Amino acid sequence: MKKRTSRNPDPAESAPSPSAPPASASLDGLFRPRSVAVIGASRRRGTIGRELLHNLLEGDFQGKVFPVNPKADVIHSMKSYPSVLSITDEVDMAVVVVPRDEVLQAVEDCGRKGVKGVVVLSSGFREIGAEGIERERKLLAILRRYGMRMIGPNCMGIINAEPGYSMNATFSPTPPVGGSIAFMSQSGAMGAAILNHAKSLGLGISMFASMGNKADVSGNDLLLYLEDDPGTSLFLLYLESFGNPRNFTRVARRITRKKPILVVKAGRTAEGAAAAVSHTGAMAGADVAVEALLGQCGVLRADSIEDLFDMAMAFTFQPLPTGPRVALLTDAGGPAIMAADTVKAAGLKLARFSEATKARLRDGLSPDASVANPVDMLGHSGGEDYARCLRIILEDEGVDGVITLYVPPVMHDPISVAGSIFEAARGSTKPVLCVFMARDEVLNAVLKMEGQKLPIFRFPESAVKAMGAMARYRTLRDRPVDETPVLDVDREAAARVFAAAASGNREHLALEEARAVFEAYGIRFAKSRVAKTRAGLGAAAEAVGYPLVMKILSPDISHKTEVGGVATDLRTKEELLAAWDGMMDRAKAIEPRPRIEGVLLQEMRRGAQEMILGVTTDPTFGPLLMAGIGGVLVEVAADVAFRVHPITPSDAAEMVAGLRGARLLQGFRGRKPLCVEAYRDALLRLDRLVADFEGIVELDINPFMVGETAGDCVAVDARMRIDPTKF
Amino acid sequence: MKKRTSRNPDPAESAPSPSAPPASASLDGLFRPRSVAVIGASRRRGTIGRELLHNLLEGDFQGKVFPVNPKADVIHSMKSYPSVLSITDEVDMAVVVVPRDEVLQAVEDCGRKGVKGVVVLSSGFREIGAEGIERERKLLAILRRYGMRMIGPNCMGIINAEPGYSMNATFSPTPPVGGSIAFMSQSGAMGAAILNHAKSLGLGISMFASMGNKADVSGNDLLLYLEDDPGTSLFLLYLESFGNPRNFTRVARRITRKKPILVVKAGRTAEGAAAAVSHTGAMAGADVAVEALLGQCGVLRADSIEDLFDMAMAFTFQPLPTGPRVALLTDAGGPAIMAADTVKAAGLKLARFSEATKARLRDGLSPDASVANPVDMLGHSGGEDYARCLRIILEDEGVDGVITLYVPPVMHDPISVAGSIFEAARGSTKPVLCVFMARDEVLNAVLKMEGQKLPIFRFPESAVKAMGAMARYRTLRDRPVDETPVLDVDREAAARVFAAAASGNREHLALEEARAVFEAYGIRFAKSRVAKTRAGLGAAAEAVGYPLVMKILSPDISHKTEVGGVATDLRTKEELLAAWDGMMDRAKAIEPRPRIEGVLLQEMRRGAQEMILGVTTDPTFGPLLMAGIGGVLVEVAADVAFRVHPITPSDAAEMVAGLRGARLLQGFRGRKPLCVEAYRDALLRLDRLVADFEGIVELDINPFMVGETAGDCVAVDARMRIDPTKF
Repeated sequence: MKKRTSRNPDPAESAPSPSAPPASASLDGLFRPRSVAVIGASRRRGTIGRELLHNLLEGDFQGKVFPVNPKADVIHSMKSYPSVLSITDEVDMAVVVVPRDEVLQAVEDCGRKGVKGVVVLSSGFREIGAEGIERERKLLAILRRYGMRMIGPNCMGIINAEPGYSMNATFSPTPPVGGSIAFMSQSGAMGAAILNHAKSLGLGISMFASMGNKADVSGNDLLLYLEDDPGTSLFLLYLESFGNPRNFTRVARRITRKKPILVVKAGRTAEGAAAAVSHTGAMAGADVAVEALLGQCGVLRADSIEDLFDMAMAFTFQPLPTGPRVALLTDAGGPAIMAADTVKAAGLKLARFSEATKARLRDGLSPDASVANPVDMLGHSGGEDYARCLRIILEDEGVDGVITLYVPPVMHDPISVAGSIFEAARGSTKPVLCVFMARDEVLNAVLKMEGQKLPIFRFPESAVKAMGAMARYRTLRDRPVDETPVLDVDREAAARVFAAAASGNREHLALEEARAVFEAYGIRFAKSRVAKTRAGLGAAAEAVGYPLVMKILSPDISHKTEVGGVATDLRTKEELLAAWDGMMDRAKAIEPRPRIEGVLLQEMRRGAQEMILGVTTDPTFGPLLMAGIGGVLVEVAADVAFRVHPITPSDAAEMVAGLRGARLLQGFRGRKPLCVEAYRDALLRLDRLVADFEGIVELDINPFMVGETAGDCVAVDARMRIDPTKF
Repeated sequence: MKKRTSRNPDPAESAPSPSAPPASASLDGLFRPRSVAVIGASRRRGTIGRELLHNLLEGDFQGKVFPVNPKADVIHSMKSYPSVLSITDEVDMAVVVVPRDEVLQAVEDCGRKGVKGVVVLSSGFREIGAEGIERERKLLAILRRYGMRMIGPNCMGIINAEPGYSMNATFSPTPPVGGSIAFMSQSGAMGAAILNHAKSLGLGISMFASMGNKADVSGNDLLLYLEDDPGTSLFLLYLESFGNPRNFTRVARRITRKKPILVVKAGRTAEGAAAAVSHTGAMAGADVAVEALLGQCGVLRADSIEDLFDMAMAFTFQPLPTGPRVALLTDAGGPAIMAADTVKAAGLKLARFSEATKARLRDGLSPDASVANPVDMLGHSGGEDYARCLRIILEDEGVDGVITLYVPPVMHDPISVAGSIFEAARGSTKPVLCVFMARDEVLNAVLKMEGQKLPIFRFPESAVKAMGAMARYRTLRDRPVDETPVLDVDREAAARVFAAAASGNREHLALEEARAVFEAYGIRFAKSRVAKTRAGLGAAAEAVGYPLVMKILSPDISHKTEVGGVATDLRTKEELLAAWDGMMDRAKAIEPRPRIEGVLLQEMRRGAQEMILGVTTDPTFGPLLMAGIGGVLVEVAADVAFRVHPITPSDAAEMVAGLRGARLLQGFRGRKPLCVEAYRDALLRLDRLVADFEGIVELDINPFMVGETAGDCVAVDARMRIDPTKF
């Protein structure tokens, strides 16, 4: 049996990385067996036990196959065994397709036989509720006892298309084409559909696994197993849920620096968690964590199965662009306009040609043709025109990639035009994607052309989106590795505050408590003093310093602004006293009369921008950090960005840069540029805080005033909710 | 020749509507000819002149065809004529495919011959610049002289698939299938590509026109011509620009109450107009007018050619849903999740089944199956399961439409399953859309099944989007007809203000001028007085009434808030004086010292919401009205809605209801619901203002304070720019 390490001479491989579980090597027992037993093999056409056996033979599996079925002597012209135990040869892997009640015995037999890996297709486990959960628990116990690894249960099998194995252990009706895509599907049905579609587009796979219930081997295990597999250059994942998001993050962050991972994640609009009290909780939709997590890992998300294929075609057949500048070459205006329309949304730009390029293009085209980008050669253009112009455009240094668009007119042979385009693109280090707006017959003929390695799209928008995904991946792959920030924090001081609240079994921290926690983590608060009486205003004001904000303190008033309970920009003792008098008069007019505990005097930061910082907890993904435009309208403005904890300094920078209101920090309306570094620093400090205390459920700092210098950046108000049982 | 009026016995038809130009009937000369001359007919295969002639014959045109070519005696086994004038029979229509330099003579000959309509395929007109513009001008003059109508020039021809005509006067290589879709394309190449694709999906067309340069017959003319055509039930438009947006609006608004219009509009991201000084101008992207206009007319916009087809399939083959509640019926969890994910974005809801429905579904399915929505029958389900469950679901009163999803497993015959689904859906008044995640061969076999009238989709998301479009169209079609609002305005008063500004050749109106214009149109302003001195504060404040807002008045200070030049909530003379002193002190500290003209005292509206109202002018579409959340952050919040002038009361209501911040008006954070009616009224008054004065270039009212009653709603600040030459 081939070992992974023996297949890759890279010295990094011989010393396994400390973060990779050594168990992953044992997946060879599943994917690289010398012999496979099919337990539940059947003679009856149309049954899974028959089709799977047939696929193994038809696919020319390079090892031995042993049908197992106590009720048959011969299956598919092969000797059949009553039990895996009665096979005299060694058995590396077993595929289990028996009824649910017979699975445990079959797997127990495999253990006794010394089988290394089992693929359980049978259903009737966790997916059917209590009875199945118990059965799955027992199944896992058997595996652990014998040290076997398992794919499934409730799956449609696995494929290893490497020439040395050529193993199709699925019941998919479509035999796969060998290639370099590793594809994992959490749904058997979608897996089959995707294998079908991949074949029709000429996309070849290296490995395939229908993951089923993932009782043992997870998607993360497979990513690790194939991380440095030289036969795999691209991962496609169809996901419905994340088993262990933190593991996925760690693994995917590393892998995406070597190979692209494309994901379709179903279940976007599932209902969110319980009602939240914080702004941050209220803003975090169900999908926000998935979106953030994938982005942080450098994983590309496809919006649909169709998008997934469009992207896979481009990545498989073409090199990555080194930048976003795309050129369009067409014989018809309409498709080029449709393509140009989507360029910006795809994160690309229309390339600007050099004058030399334009002159070369012009020479040989009709005078009515357009040699700017898009290049419109007009409707009489044939293969030679395409080939000549494509070569010229590819040589322009201002072009990172080209999309050709072709609407076959009456006079030309579309197949020969396709051949000319393919020929002109051959060997280019820049990607060329082709749109053929032709009849199905023509399109299929082009797709089946020998030796073609250009991705063919039916619609202009699809090609542009795919080119955009390639450019985005290139940026993600090559982004610098973040240094872990060194933050000076006082963990003990914060722990004391939490302990006090937890001992009183309090979920909600008082403002002063929250403030103490944040200050222990280096997030400064606006200077403030409480004045309980009119007479005490002067001393409190002197301690804080003018100008001041005055806020009424009352346990009965939650929306201070709306009852005139906030006065800003108080610059003198006189203004201060006048504001107190007005505020108290208005408070007295409220029915029922609220209890008044005095006022809070806070320093006023003129010219600062109100931002929000927050944390909420996702039941699957753990803490989510939020940055956004702050103030009372945060939910209406809806200008926020989320990331999954833990975040890096780059994540923090991207969160802020991606806000619609980012320009508020960059010198808005004549204001000086503000100290965005202090805001990003505060995000990293919050990240550290939730790393240190997992009992934090949610928190907001709102507003966090971002001023011109780090010293001008202060939190003004905050709330924090904890789980007292976790301290 | 069939007349339009004779084909439709509707009495409304016999008396032509006053808004329909009588000229439209004359399009019969183009689309319903008894005889066609092909001027430029050719013997040479692959030329347009030969392929077009061939298509006419091959398509079995029911009238006579006359080839015209001075260099040939026989073409395609038919007698050929040296000129259209040498034909002895009457000629209704002529297709012109001669070189550009011969077009004018050919069309002149047509006029002399008494031809009623010409279709000019030749290029070399407006699209090539000055020389072509002149040629097109001459061409139009000839048409007018003889009273002929023309499609083109620079187009690929027209089709009328009605059995009485069966005329394919294009050079498209794909013969069309007859059906009920009228399709107009502004691009010949896209037209050909779309005809190809339509045929592969089984979509039949009634009429097709490649519009070319639209020198004479426009898209609007064709819409009018086919408005009540009984053979046309759906319009597809591929547009690159709008010739006459106001005409389109008027026509499309009426037609969409009878037949759906689906549009792909290319050119979304074209660069916007010149830099704008108003918020409204800054917020209006290039595409905003198109998006608004199409929405106002009830036209459905497809994001891509692919979306256009998905929608067309659904509209063609299925009835409209009466509501948004969709049921999903599947044999695999994955595709159903993908579908459910897009339900909300498509404007649909997942239907909730009655208990009776669930019980009926359960009876006959595996106990592991799910009978909630989505109904997952699990992977062993066949045609009978689909048929039985589909019938049950269609009978549930809580279901408006059904999407079936089918991933063919190994044991079933996909074609027979499709047959069962088709059979169960037959005669349903609710739409059924089908997703087949199958191999291309299977999909093509299903598409070609005899008598099938269900739309087949390859991906779940496409079916959901199509169902969403149908539900949306149903709502648009059935929306109530708006009454024209009766608004009491003083046009003369506003005209005097404009005249004064125009006489001084001023573009920018002073605040007091703008205020006078708006007040003449019934938009009230906050009460205000100017106080030029500290001594004058008292009297001014008494005239306005407390509480007050004080704003510094200086021609040198444009951002008052940032220099401490705004004080709010001043409730007493003392606060007023303190605020004046503070403001003047701060102003004196500014370098260089600004000129101070005093302060403006305005009434303060506590508990009101700051909104914005605005108008900007699009070079093609004319005035655009904007509504949105107001205040200084309007551009950052980016929560605005646009409509093209003129707007209806429903448009105004939709503009407000569609804002993210609409809830700010509905009792936000304990505040009482605000008087949104007064805000909508103000929008309609602005609409009237721009109707009355076309010299208004742009304007903002920001903020417009929306309070609890109409009397509490006032404009606070405004700016207006005019074109002085237009008054």
